[in-house]
Amino acid sequence: MLERFKTIRDHTVNICKPLEIEDHVVQPSMDVSPPKWHLAHTTWFFEEFILKPNFKNYSPFHPKYNYLFNSYYESMGERVMRVDRGNMSRPSVGDILKYRKYVDQNMIELIPSLPKNLYSLLEIGFQHEQQHQELLLTDIKYILGHNPLFPAYKEDFKEYNGRLLNAKGSYLSFPEGIYEIGFKGDGFCFDNEKEVHKVFLQEFEIAEQLISNGEYLEFIKAGGYQTAAYWYSDAWAWVNQHKITSPLYWHQIDEQWHRYSLAGLEPLPMNEPVTHISHYEAAAFAEWKGLRLPTEFEWEVAADKLDYGQRWEHTQSAYLAYPGYRKPAGAVGEYNGKFMINQMVLRGASIATPENHSRKTYRNFFHPQLQWQFTGIRLCKK
Amino acid sequence: MLERFKTIRDHTVNICKPLEIEDHVVQPSMDVSPPKWHLAHTTWFFEEFILKPNFKNYSPFHPKYNYLFNSYYESMGERVMRVDRGNMSRPSVGDILKYRKYVDQNMIELIPSLPKNLYSLLEIGFQHEQQHQELLLTDIKYILGHNPLFPAYKEDFKEYNGRLLNAKGSYLSFPEGIYEIGFKGDGFCFDNEKEVHKVFLQEFEIAEQLISNGEYLEFIKAGGYQTAAYWYSDAWAWVNQHKITSPLYWHQIDEQWHRYSLAGLEPLPMNEPVTHISHYEAAAFAEWKGLRLPTEFEWEVAADKLDYGQRWEHTQSAYLAYPGYRKPAGAVGEYNGKFMINQMVLRGASIATPENHSRKTYRNFFHPQLQWQFTGIRLCKK
Amino acid sequence: MLERFKTIRDHTVNICKPLEIEDHVVQPSMDVSPPKWHLAHTTWFFEEFILKPNFKNYSPFHPKYNYLFNSYYESMGERVMRVDRGNMSRPSVGDILKYRKYVDQNMIELIPSLPKNLYSLLEIGFQHEQQHQELLLTDIKYILGHNPLFPAYKEDFKEYNGRLLNAKGSYLSFPEGIYEIGFKGDGFCFDNEKEVHKVFLQEFEIAEQLISNGEYLEFIKAGGYQTAAYWYSDAWAWVNQHKITSPLYWHQIDEQWHRYSLAGLEPLPMNEPVTHISHYEAAAFAEWKGLRLPTEFEWEVAADKLDYGQRWEHTQSAYLAYPGYRKPAGAVGEYNGKFMINQMVLRGASIATPENHSRKTYRNFFHPQLQWQFTGIRLCKK
Amino acid sequence: MLERFKTIRDHTVNICKPLEIEDHVVQPSMDVSPPKWHLAHTTWFFEEFILKPNFKNYSPFHPKYNYLFNSYYESMGERVMRVDRGNMSRPSVGDILKYRKYVDQNMIELIPSLPKNLYSLLEIGFQHEQQHQELLLTDIKYILGHNPLFPAYKEDFKEYNGRLLNAKGSYLSFPEGIYEIGFKGDGFCFDNEKEVHKVFLQEFEIAEQLISNGEYLEFIKAGGYQTAAYWYSDAWAWVNQHKITSPLYWHQIDEQWHRYSLAGLEPLPMNEPVTHISHYEAAAFAEWKGLRLPTEFEWEVAADKLDYGQRWEHTQSAYLAYPGYRKPAGAVGEYNGKFMINQMVLRGASIATPENHSRKTYRNFFHPQLQWQFTGIRLCKK
Repeated sequence: MLERFKTIRDHTVNICKPLEIEDHVVQPSMDVSPPKWHLAHTTWFFEEFILKPNFKNYSPFHPKYNYLFNSYYESMGERVMRVDRGNMSRPSVGDILKYRKYVDQNMIELIPSLPKNLYSLLEIGFQHEQQHQELLLTDIKYILGHNPLFPAYKEDFKEYNGRLLNAKGSYLSFPEGIYEIGFKGDGFCFDNEKEVHKVFLQEFEIAEQLISNGEYLEFIKAGGYQTAAYWYSDAWAWVNQHKITSPLYWHQIDEQWHRYSLAGLEPLPMNEPVTHISHYEAAAFAEWKGLRLPTEFEWEVAADKLDYGQRWEHTQSAYLAYPGYRKPAGAVGEYNGKFMINQMVLRGASIATPENHSRKTYRNFFHPQLQWQFTGIRLCKK
Repeated sequence: MLERFKTIRDHTVNICKPLEIEDHVVQPSMDVSPPKWHLAHTTWFFEEFILKPNFKNYSPFHPKYNYLFNSYYESMGERVMRVDRGNMSRPSVGDILKYRKYVDQNMIELIPSLPKNLYSLLEIGFQHEQQHQELLLTDIKYILGHNPLFPAYKEDFKEYNGRLLNAKGSYLSFPEGIYEIGFKGDGFCFDNEKEVHKVFLQEFEIAEQLISNGEYLEFIKAGGYQTAAYWYSDAWAWVNQHKITSPLYWHQIDEQWHRYSLAGLEPLPMNEPVTHISHYEAAAFAEWKGLRLPTEFEWEVAADKLDYGQRWEHTQSAYLAYPGYRKPAGAVGEYNGKFMINQMVLRGASIATPENHSRKTYRNFFHPQLQWQFTGIRLCKK
Repeated sequence: MLERFKTIRDHTVNICKPLEIEDHVVQPSMDVSPPKWHLAHTTWFFEEFILKPNFKNYSPFHPKYNYLFNSYYESMGERVMRVDRGNMSRPSVGDILKYRKYVDQNMIELIPSLPKNLYSLLEIGFQHEQQHQELLLTDIKYILGHNPLFPAYKEDFKEYNGRLLNAKGSYLSFPEGIYEIGFKGDGFCFDNEKEVHKVFLQEFEIAEQLISNGEYLEFIKAGGYQTAAYWYSDAWAWVNQHKITSPLYWHQIDEQWHRYSLAGLEPLPMNEPVTHISHYEAAAFAEWKGLRLPTEFEWEVAADKLDYGQRWEHTQSAYLAYPGYRKPAGAVGEYNGKFMINQMVLRGASIATPENHSRKTYRNFFHPQLQWQFTGIRLCKK
Repeated sequence: MLERFKTIRDHTVNICKPLEIEDHVVQPSMDVSPPKWHLAHTTWFFEEFILKPNFKNYSPFHPKYNYLFNSYYESMGERVMRVDRGNMSRPSVGDILKYRKYVDQNMIELIPSLPKNLYSLLEIGFQHEQQHQELLLTDIKYILGHNPLFPAYKEDFKEYNGRLLNAKGSYLSFPEGIYEIGFKGDGFCFDNEKEVHKVFLQEFEIAEQLISNGEYLEFIKAGGYQTAAYWYSDAWAWVNQHKITSPLYWHQIDEQWHRYSLAGLEPLPMNEPVTHISHYEAAAFAEWKGLRLPTEFEWEVAADKLDYGQRWEHTQSAYLAYPGYRKPAGAVGEYNGKFMINQMVLRGASIATPENHSRKTYRNFFHPQLQWQFTGIRLCKK
């Protein structure tokens, strides 16, 4: 437990190592948080939920940090409006690193004697920090990728670690029948992955590989972003209001398509999987192809035979409660249940997901217009 | 076919009979259309899809009406922005009634010789007009119910025709198993009700009766609208941004709760089913009760044993395609498929639904914040 | 007094005679009021300020009309938000005409015995109604001119009654010196035209004639709306945000410039004065010409030698209090003083101004982006 | 010239010395710019207008800085939208300081041989930088004063250097007559201070001292922010929309009024002049007192007898061109002329104004709702 704590906590700080202090501060979009906020908020979780109630004589690092660094936890009292996070120049990055060190030292002291019944809460703290590690990377990409100087995060950063995608992928077939869905192992899972339950699936075929940049470019060249028939009504309004004409981070410079990756601006690699596309775009692409996205259940059933982990894969399932799900009480109950409306499920994991933080029952979810995560497309036939 | 045409067309005009000319013109909310727009748009459907392509020598009533009265049909060319419909004082109500008469006469001439293969298109015209008959009534209610003088639509209008709701309703039980979902009869159904397919349901219990105004008032008195824990995150933002504190049309006057109904302003009848609540409110109420909304599949399975037809009943199912569904090509394809995102399914029918326009497989859908339809709540246990 | 009352009241109703009932209801812009609101609001003035306090036993026509039809009078209690006026289908036009008749009959009974000290209040009622007569006409133009059918108000309506403008107008010169400004006659004037006071003017030259549509078209063809240098910073933001490319009501159809006038859509008459231009546009035009707008003081000094009354003429004077001005107490004090910020003065009168309602000291005022009045441009040389 | 250059340039850097790097980056309001932007933009002025056109072989520091750091200069090509300045984490503060050093070294090399006819442009560069020194301080105050930790800028910073204000100040009288207005000395002035011209003023009396915090608090206690009659119509809408209830930076904590100053949060000093009030508030206060703000001409006439320099003093004059003013051509022409609409004149200088940057003819100007400058109130009697 102690080693895991140290490893995870260090990893967060390491993610920020290549940044300038200035990069820790800004919030160029409401969906993005400043890196220093992630550094502080993950620390706040351990201070608020573990140290304060369980470590005798613990003295909080600063009286206002609870107010500044809680997030969506309505039950924990007034919070700093999310949209204002990018205006807070203080506490400085230095102060926040001191805060991390202080909390870490106290945690390291506490963990060996922590009662077993608190292990699951500690585990949630780990999982929570790992989720923020992923967000840190996607938010850093947003910050640097929207800077007119297009600075690289790490010049040797690879956004894809798989085989190059070839022109025609094959499909895996699954017969109709009753399947079991949901987490049943011993390890950790989130509440939204339960209860295990049966679903009836029709026969389906799912692609072995993801859609590539090259295939997606065909969609653009075929006028995909100008053809209402491919888009949901809400999606079409979004395309037109925001004048969307390509995935996020794509730039056409002197007639040549480029993309910003964490390694900087570079020519679009045609054989890598497309990424930073919203659910709206994934669904329109599928419609154009005459195919469809998988449901999250089909995806889970097929997962053992898929090579996944490079992109969060859009599904055509809305993020809803599994049968028998009840929102847990208290602040921890706000973790997953309260988002079960207006969002779509993504399955898999991405290049930004920390090691050991993915499993085939994991349910990620975003509003259907969001592009800033490392998302991708896998299609189903009929 | 001819009789049905006449009956349906007359019914639309009859709905507007109690109105002043002025009531036909206004659009107090983006979701509401002016009555005269409904009168014209339903007529446009027959002119555009049936008369123009199929009635030799048909001369359109007015060269600009196609532009003015198409609606969401992106494939039919430029349309009047929905938000502007309430600013169009011309054509006058009188001109639109002439338009109806002109199109009706031509249709009556055409129908007897209409080729059989166009019957299904004609049927869509009927169904389309019936859907607008329901919207006409809910939009009229919105217009009159937001007028500071609270004029009645019809002084003897009844918004509930069922038994008075008593304090404790009972529940019907259904065993787990595979059930068939979707329309399989011979008559008309919309594309979104197909294909027939199997689903696996867990054991469930569904209430025999709807939630009453009195029960909902308990939720208000218990601080329901002030307690974040009952609400989805998006719902809580909605409650706070719009300062929602009750169902639409409820007014507390001198400490006494009233509601505006189509019969005018009156004391809240405690034993009638609550109505004009959004999905957000229905879900929060269920959370407060420690119960949940049914899925649309559970509802359909139970439907034969339910007394339904007074309120559109919220479900916890997102409006998504059934397995095997493909959006039809052309303008008719825009009818249902393009709305299969961000909306929730409602089942049943309401007091405003025309006779013969309801069936147990019918899938209605709205965005989760909308209150202006005759919606209601039926709960499930575990 | 009695004859004047009847004449003015009848004139308001006559302005609305050519309208359909539907035209009375809509409000396509926040700056525009529905005609039926003007009909009611001018009536409310006499009921509220004259009948209620001065006519014994007067019984108000309707208990809610005071709430519905007061306007900006903060001191008279809660008001219907201006933006909502266009959603009120009731009271109907018929009810409002009954309201007018009822109040008129009572006024006609009261006027002969009205104490002399109330004559000035009665006069304000007359002036107020005349101001709304002008707004009625400009608001009707906005309603019909924004309808896709471009219906005429009166087919023989003339928007200009002066000499055709020729290519080169001449200038009148005035020497530097002290001039007296402000109203000094015996008749009626508004509080904002006083006190009479001295101003020192530099020598100036003012054009004898207004800028024509033809001259303004030159500005458009010279790229006026695309050249930042001609525009104030706020004006340039307005041009770009609203994509302004011409005066209001101008339409380029098949390469030919047209304008909507109260007589309908017609080819742009090149020798009539340009109208429906905002202060921003007038100032940009002057900058392009290398000339400037007059101050309101220059205009007033020159007025006796000018032929005015066709267009409200933009000045480069902000609408501010004259020396010695004090806002009157009470509701009548809200009439002029509270608008003395953010608005620019216009002098003269327009084709829509009622007879006997113009004088050379009259100070009209609008926010600088507004186009919907019959405004025009007269230039000064250095 | 060289010494002046060095002194002014060093002063800008010194203003930022007490800041953390993080403080240089944020932009909590559209009217505020990040300190690092000020550091770069003032440097850009010298590079773009002086070095590039006049220093042979000058090589720009960075090819994109012209794009990043020009401001409102429409004629200099595409600019970074003002609202986005706070999202640019790069270039870093370190890079910008290098940019300053590089440009300074080149300027220091160039200045001794600079042709005399460019002295006036160099002077504009000095004045421009001094204006930004004032903005730097007010923007820093906004950034730190809106941080929930209320960090001090300098713990010994004094926001007022004058005599304590006593209960009753006296008034200076000036007779009616012709006065000369505008700059006529030999030194530098802005184009908007010219031409010298005559104005006729009525007799007036102007207060010797500014309104104090204590006097302003009386206005609040008298319900000033809740009484429509004191406010312009636009001002009243502003008060209600933004829920304004006091000057900026005032906080009522445990029933005690505090203010944030650059020295930190502290009890409100009653005998110092009120500051951070908008024109709307100044005018409402004057109305409540039954007095009025001076015109900018009255202020200029009285200036020799006033003790000014602590607060920018609101006037009731709109910011308009003096007679004979013509906007200069080119980018420098955008400096003042294009703002001559919708803004009000402030006279004097403030605690944040650099030494030697004030004169009695100086015309400052802001939109009437803005509070973030060190503004104050001086009243006139009738």
